[in-house]
Amino acid sequence: MAAALTLPMSAPADDDTAAAAGPVFQVHPIGRVRRDGGRTTIEIEPAYRDAMLGVDELDSIWVLFWFDRNDERARRSILQVHPRANPDNPLRGVFATHAPVRPNLIGMTRVRILSVDGLSIEIDDIDAWDDTPVLDLKP
Amino acid sequence: MAAALTLPMSAPADDDTAAAAGPVFQVHPIGRVRRDGGRTTIEIEPAYRDAMLGVDELDSIWVLFWFDRNDERARRSILQVHPRANPDNPLRGVFATHAPVRPNLIGMTRVRILSVDGLSIEIDDIDAWDDTPVLDLKP
Repeated sequence: MAAALTLPMSAPADDDTAAAAGPVFQVHPIGRVRRDGGRTTIEIEPAYRDAMLGVDELDSIWVLFWFDRNDERARRSILQVHPRANPDNPLRGVFATHAPVRPNLIGMTRVRILSVDGLSIEIDDIDAWDDTPVLDLKP
Repeated sequence: MAAALTLPMSAPADDDTAAAAGPVFQVHPIGRVRRDGGRTTIEIEPAYRDAMLGVDELDSIWVLFWFDRNDERARRSILQVHPRANPDNPLRGVFATHAPVRPNLIGMTRVRILSVDGLSIEIDDIDAWDDTPVLDLKP
């Protein structure tokens, strides 16, 4: 849950790591995180309005988002971190942490829904910056 | 393939994506689901061995995977479904369901870890087919 607080501390792995063979799939934002004056919302793209049916009945929801500030080869090659950016914490593999550097930059946080107004979902909080691309919502 | 990954990870949307506008991000498998004789494992690519450090200490883990059988424009454009494929269930937006058709085909399941042997994680079960691409693991 504290992904943004878990900063990378280890050196990038070698060049071969990020270039593993195999298919590449494409994802695109279905909305964005908005932080404005203490209010946090997820603003869904109008193209996805129909996908919102029923979201207003939920008390909480999973938000999958993209760590877009780390979307560069070097940061996607980091495979181990000192959790919570504390060098006293032993190195740990990113698959055993919520670090915002990882091969696929998907963040995942359960948030509480305060209200839904059309394409705008007001939430309690999320460990993501303003303007972060949102990839998916799941109950 | 490797060249594509050295470039910035976003690109203009093209006609094959469901999104009308906005950036496209790239994800790639870090492993695969394997089902073999009643045994279910996640086989991690050797390139990501270092990312596994500490996974063997976990009792359960989130598995993010790709619904690759639905990776075509028509299925990524489906925004409402009858939950559990039962037409008696009222239509619901995919953001309020776990349907395997959605704009970004990311599946997410919490699984129990039975054992870890190198790059092979034996799990109790997962709602994904054999050979499903795995995108990420999170504690």
